[in-house]
Amino acid sequence: MRTGEPISTKPPSGFRDFVGHEAERRAHLVQQISQVYESFGFSPIETSALESLQVLEGSGGGEENEKLIFKILKRGEKFKEVLPSAQSESDLADFGLRFDLTVPLARVVAEYQSKIKMPAKIFHIAPVWRAERAQKGRFREFYQCDVDIIGSSDCSAEVDVIHAVVTAVSSIAGNDFELRVNDRKLLRSLAESFGFADDKADAFAIILDKADKVEFNQLIEEWTTLLGRSLPKRLTELHSKPFDLNECRDFNLEAVNNLERLLGVLKDLNLPLKSIKFDATLARGLGYYTGPVFELRHHSAGYSLGGGGRYDGLIGRFMKNSVPACGFSIGFERLLMLLDSQESVDSKILFFPVIDESHRSAVIRLAHSLRLKGWKASVFPSSAKLKNQLKFASDQGMRWVVVAGPDELARNELILKDFKNGQEMSIKLDSLDETLKNIIKT
Amino acid sequence: MRTGEPISTKPPSGFRDFVGHEAERRAHLVQQISQVYESFGFSPIETSALESLQVLEGSGGGEENEKLIFKILKRGEKFKEVLPSAQSESDLADFGLRFDLTVPLARVVAEYQSKIKMPAKIFHIAPVWRAERAQKGRFREFYQCDVDIIGSSDCSAEVDVIHAVVTAVSSIAGNDFELRVNDRKLLRSLAESFGFADDKADAFAIILDKADKVEFNQLIEEWTTLLGRSLPKRLTELHSKPFDLNECRDFNLEAVNNLERLLGVLKDLNLPLKSIKFDATLARGLGYYTGPVFELRHHSAGYSLGGGGRYDGLIGRFMKNSVPACGFSIGFERLLMLLDSQESVDSKILFFPVIDESHRSAVIRLAHSLRLKGWKASVFPSSAKLKNQLKFASDQGMRWVVVAGPDELARNELILKDFKNGQEMSIKLDSLDETLKNIIKT
Repeated sequence: MRTGEPISTKPPSGFRDFVGHEAERRAHLVQQISQVYESFGFSPIETSALESLQVLEGSGGGEENEKLIFKILKRGEKFKEVLPSAQSESDLADFGLRFDLTVPLARVVAEYQSKIKMPAKIFHIAPVWRAERAQKGRFREFYQCDVDIIGSSDCSAEVDVIHAVVTAVSSIAGNDFELRVNDRKLLRSLAESFGFADDKADAFAIILDKADKVEFNQLIEEWTTLLGRSLPKRLTELHSKPFDLNECRDFNLEAVNNLERLLGVLKDLNLPLKSIKFDATLARGLGYYTGPVFELRHHSAGYSLGGGGRYDGLIGRFMKNSVPACGFSIGFERLLMLLDSQESVDSKILFFPVIDESHRSAVIRLAHSLRLKGWKASVFPSSAKLKNQLKFASDQGMRWVVVAGPDELARNELILKDFKNGQEMSIKLDSLDETLKNIIKT
Repeated sequence: MRTGEPISTKPPSGFRDFVGHEAERRAHLVQQISQVYESFGFSPIETSALESLQVLEGSGGGEENEKLIFKILKRGEKFKEVLPSAQSESDLADFGLRFDLTVPLARVVAEYQSKIKMPAKIFHIAPVWRAERAQKGRFREFYQCDVDIIGSSDCSAEVDVIHAVVTAVSSIAGNDFELRVNDRKLLRSLAESFGFADDKADAFAIILDKADKVEFNQLIEEWTTLLGRSLPKRLTELHSKPFDLNECRDFNLEAVNNLERLLGVLKDLNLPLKSIKFDATLARGLGYYTGPVFELRHHSAGYSLGGGGRYDGLIGRFMKNSVPACGFSIGFERLLMLLDSQESVDSKILFFPVIDESHRSAVIRLAHSLRLKGWKASVFPSSAKLKNQLKFASDQGMRWVVVAGPDELARNELILKDFKNGQEMSIKLDSLDETLKNIIKT
C-alpha cells in the first residue's frame, strides 16, 4: 500500500494511542478524579518520568519489580566507554522509566523536606511503564491515580485516602464496589503462629496473594515446601473457614484494635460501597507494605480496581528518619473497562460552516464572541462547499449548526439548525447567548 | 546524614519534580490551555510515550533529531542475543521516547484513518524527552501543548490554530506578544534567487534560523561557504534592509498571496497581540515544514514561546496518500517562566481539625457534606493536639478553619475562624452553605 519504505504505524506492542471520544473521556475522567482529590485537600505533585536505576532498583519490590523496568541506554561517549566490557543490562543503562508512583513519591518527599509540611496530603496522577509481556488487558503503559498521606502514623490517614478514592471511583462508576481490608502485621503474626520463621513471613504472604488466581491446593503445596513440614490443620482449612476479625485477636491484638477502629470510622461514613469487610487472606503483592492494606473490587470484575496500604519503611530508604505513610492507588485503565464504551460527542458544541471565504473573519469573530461566554464553537477550518461542511458536521455527530452567511449577518441574525430534528430557526444576534441557552439546555 | 546506602534523591540531571503550589499551578495551566483548545472544537489525543526507533528516526528532522532520542534497551533474551555483536546504540535498543508531539501525531493519523474524519482538529498536551546536555533553562523533559489541523490545505487552518494558541497564551500571560509569520516556499524561492541550488535551500534556511543567536557576519560566512562564491549584494544587506512582503512578490507570488490572505484574516480578528508581522528571515528550525511558518515571542523574553507551521509532507511518510496538515505548539515551560512565581494556596479551602478522635467521623461527614456542595474541605489526617493542627493550617497558608467539636455540633453549629484577621464566628448548620458563600466570596 505504501510507496516508500513501509513503517508500521501501530504503537509498540503493549502500548496504546487514544483518539476521538475515547481520548476525550480519558482526559475528562483524569480531571474528575483530580477534582475529587483536590476537594479533599490533596495537592498534586509531578515527578520525572525517568529515575536513576539506583532509585528504582531495590525499592522493596524485590527482583520482580526490577525486571519490570524499561531501561534507558547510555548515550554518546559514555555508551562507547561501557560497550566493550558490558555484561548485563545495568552496565549499559543509567536511567529507567518509573514502574509505579510510590517510589518516586518517596524520593520526592525525601528531597523536598523543607517544602513539604507533614502530614502532607498528596495526589499523583501519571502514566507508569512496565516491561511485562503484553497480553489482553495487561498494558505496558498505563495511568495510576494515587493519593498518599505522608507523616501520619494513625489510621485517620487510611480513612482519608480510602474516603477520597471511594468518592472518586463511585462518582465515575457507581456504588457496586466492595472494599476489603487486612493488616500486614496481622499476616506476619498469623504466619508465625503457623510456624513460619520471621524471614519466611513475606514469602508466606506472597503465596497467599495468589489465592484469587490459583486453586487453594497449590497454595498448600507451596506453603508446605516453604515450611519444610506438613502444615497445621487450621491453615489447610483457611479457604473454607476464613478467620473473622475477633478470632485474630489472639495473633496480634494491636493490629486488630487498629483495624477495628478503621472499620468503625469507615462504617460511620456510609461510604457509597456495596460492602466493607475484613479479609484475613488479603495480602496485596507489594513488598513495601507494613500495616493496613486494602483493595477495591467491583461486583462484575474478577480483578482489583485499586489497592493500597501503609508503607512506613519506604521513605526512610531515602532519608535519615523513617516517615510513616499510607496511600491508595486507582487502576485507571481497569476503572475505564467498567464503563460503557459508548459515549457521544459533546452535544452542546456549535458548528460554524463558512459559506464565503471573504466572510471568514466575520464568522470567526461571531464564534469567538460565544466562546467568551462559555460556549464551545468550532469553525470549519478549510474552504469547502457548504454541503460538504454540513456532511462533515453530521458525520462527526454534531447536533447544532450555526449558519451565519453574509445575508444573515446583514439582517443582524443567524440561523441555528438542529441536526437531530432537522429544524431551523432564526436568532437575533443581540439576544444570541440567552436564546441559545434556552434552546440548548446547559 | 543517611544510615544506609546513600541514594541521591535528586531527579536525574535535566529532569525536574514539582511539588506544592508549583505543581498545582502547572496542573491548572494545562487544564486552562485544554479548555481553550476544546472551546475551539479541537479534540484531545493521547499517544504512547514510547515509539519504535523506526518511527522516530528519519522523521524529517535530520540527524539532529535522532541524537535527541532517549533509547530503550532491549530486554531479556533479545538483549542477550544482540549484546555480543552490538556496535552501536541502535543495535541494543528497540524503542525510543518521543522527542516531539508531531511525529507521533503523524503516525496516529495514518493508523486511525477510519476514526479520524478530515479536516480533523486535534490537540495534544504531553511531555516530550530530549537527550540534550542539561543546562540552565533547557530541560530534558518538558511539556508541549500542540494544536493541529489535519486535512485542510488552505490558510483557514493556519488561522484557526493561531487563533486558538493566541487565545490560550493571552488568557495566561497577557497581550504583550508578537506573532511573526513567513513561508518556507518563499524562503526556498529567495534562496534560489540568490543562486543557491535546490538541494541547498534547506541548508540556507537552517543558517538563517541562527539569526537570533549569532552575529549576522557569521551567517554571511556560512552562506558564502555554502554557495561556494561571494554572495549577491542584496543578501548581505538582509539584516539592515529586511524584505517587506510586497518586495517578495517577485520571488514567489503564490506564497505571498497566501500570506497576505492569512495576515488579512488575522488582522481582522483583533487578536490580543502587540503585533503581527511578516518576517522574511523567520525560518523555524524543523526540517518538515513546507508552507507558512509562525512564531510567538514575548516582549520580555529573548526566545520563542511557541511556533508552528504547515507540514504537508510528514504524514505521507506513514501512508499512501499525502495529507496536508499544520500545527502550532506552545512551549509550556517557557510560558511558565514568564509568570510571577508567587502564588498563594487556594484561599477558599476549608480546614477541619479533629478535636476528639471519637468524634472524627462526625467531622468527616460534615466536611463531606460541604464537598458535595462544591467546597474544598481538608480534614486533618492524624491524631494531634488542636494547637498543632492549627499551626499546621497556618504554616500551610490556609485561611479558613472550621472548628466542629462535640460541643458545637450538639448546639447544631460550628465555629469559623478567619486566620487572616483572627476573627471567629458561630454559624448554624442549617444555613451553613449559604452563610459560607456570603463570608467567603466565591
